[in-house]
Amino acid sequence: MNAFIINGLKEAEKVKSEILNEVDSLQKTYGLPPGLAVVRVGDDPASAVYVEKKGQDARAMGFYFEEHYLDGNASQNDVLKTIQSINANPQIHGLILQLPVPAHLNPFKLVNAIDPQKDVDGLHPLNTGLLAQGRDEGFIPCTPLGCHHLIETVTKDLAGLKAVVVGRSILVGRPMALLLIQEDVTVTLTHAKTQKLPKLLKEADLVIAAMGAPRFIKGEWLKEDAIIIDVGINRIQDSSGKMSLTGDVDFESAQERVRAITPVPGGVGPMTRIYLLKNTIKAFKEKLN
Amino acid sequence: MNAFIINGLKEAEKVKSEILNEVDSLQKTYGLPPGLAVVRVGDDPASAVYVEKKGQDARAMGFYFEEHYLDGNASQNDVLKTIQSINANPQIHGLILQLPVPAHLNPFKLVNAIDPQKDVDGLHPLNTGLLAQGRDEGFIPCTPLGCHHLIETVTKDLAGLKAVVVGRSILVGRPMALLLIQEDVTVTLTHAKTQKLPKLLKEADLVIAAMGAPRFIKGEWLKEDAIIIDVGINRIQDSSGKMSLTGDVDFESAQERVRAITPVPGGVGPMTRIYLLKNTIKAFKEKLN
Repeated sequence: MNAFIINGLKEAEKVKSEILNEVDSLQKTYGLPPGLAVVRVGDDPASAVYVEKKGQDARAMGFYFEEHYLDGNASQNDVLKTIQSINANPQIHGLILQLPVPAHLNPFKLVNAIDPQKDVDGLHPLNTGLLAQGRDEGFIPCTPLGCHHLIETVTKDLAGLKAVVVGRSILVGRPMALLLIQEDVTVTLTHAKTQKLPKLLKEADLVIAAMGAPRFIKGEWLKEDAIIIDVGINRIQDSSGKMSLTGDVDFESAQERVRAITPVPGGVGPMTRIYLLKNTIKAFKEKLN
Repeated sequence: MNAFIINGLKEAEKVKSEILNEVDSLQKTYGLPPGLAVVRVGDDPASAVYVEKKGQDARAMGFYFEEHYLDGNASQNDVLKTIQSINANPQIHGLILQLPVPAHLNPFKLVNAIDPQKDVDGLHPLNTGLLAQGRDEGFIPCTPLGCHHLIETVTKDLAGLKAVVVGRSILVGRPMALLLIQEDVTVTLTHAKTQKLPKLLKEADLVIAAMGAPRFIKGEWLKEDAIIIDVGINRIQDSSGKMSLTGDVDFESAQERVRAITPVPGGVGPMTRIYLLKNTIKAFKEKLN
């Protein structure tokens, strides 16, 4: 039996049309659109592309968008001042600092300076703490929200399922585990020091792969009716020298076996981008209500 | 083979003598002792006893201690004002709100009003978030800290162990899971919706029982070399009508089987009380450094 392939692109298109309608209606009601600002420091080429895409998405859906670019020599204080000025700008409801920042900057202190009510990446420790306490007034990072959305395209009945989250990053693994706890899932959070991962995966109804190791998780490690969400985006080269993107799960062997699986690309990625906009709408509404 | 019985009382005495020395030395260096304040609202009899014990502990070890009592009709604003005045008091380094508060009050908003740098119960969401992100500048709740201390009396080599935390309370289960993640433990957080708990426990090197169900966890569910930390404190009546305290683990059947186990009483309880004082010392040092 072949798995149901969860189509993140199609799902993202559906949500986009909802967002378009909602932004239109908010604009009519309040006389201004939700505003998103991105602070980018230095010349990381991937970051430049990501921020450009975020801007395209946002503008295409009627948001007001600003990019604040600082060159790679900007001081901690320069970046702090930029963040503070955006915190104070009533046109901006969501503010993100594009990571990574250059090595001479302290990203934790910069994220701490973001107004938690504008923290649409959900990285401020206050928002992490609200999630960890099971309170819903904070912001949850976009990738776990996107993963959760994709899981719900397969089943909405998560209570009592066993999940294994592979990887304990601040951006994905940890908040994903905390979010699933809220959904009454029994969650095991695993990492580089975990022993016998295949044995743990064999028992999992739900696997979130987010450790950044190409095709690491093999189909034979997985339970037959499992739902697999692959957050990995790894750039690999095949024997002919061609570059391609692959996830943390060996898609070919997994899809012959499991209940449902996200592809890479076209799975989690598009949903992550969409949830940045959904979080910005949430920030807008909470500010104006 | 009988288990090693982890003696929380003895361990607490050891830590107390360290604290006595440290407070003495801080007093000499800075000319004032660490200060702890407890806000208590209403006439919950257990709370009155707990606060009295906290005050006895603190004073006996050289701390400055204040209890702020408000009667059961105090408004949210009355309690907020009390918290704010203690936040502003430089003699006080640690501030806790004794829970539960009367039902007409919003405990979340009250805890949110505590200066996170005085939040020695580790309940402010900012502190929860710092723990969830694996950062060590915040405060961790006292019970998980006490549990961790007791685990380390058995082994300091936690990396790669499998832990099952039973119960997902904000005060114990959740921060316990987050703390163990920092120690490179593979953590499964379980709760009322978890299926087949005995099967999960059978695989666990470390069990933290914190769901508040007397003698619920049976010895036969446990792995033979497991370390068992029992956070439960349940008041039960035997067939002759006599009241006694019991944990969430069936101690008799468990201690015949496992590697090490905490008794109830005399296990986690005394360590929790000690860690309130240790957190207050941490707050004092961070304020004055």
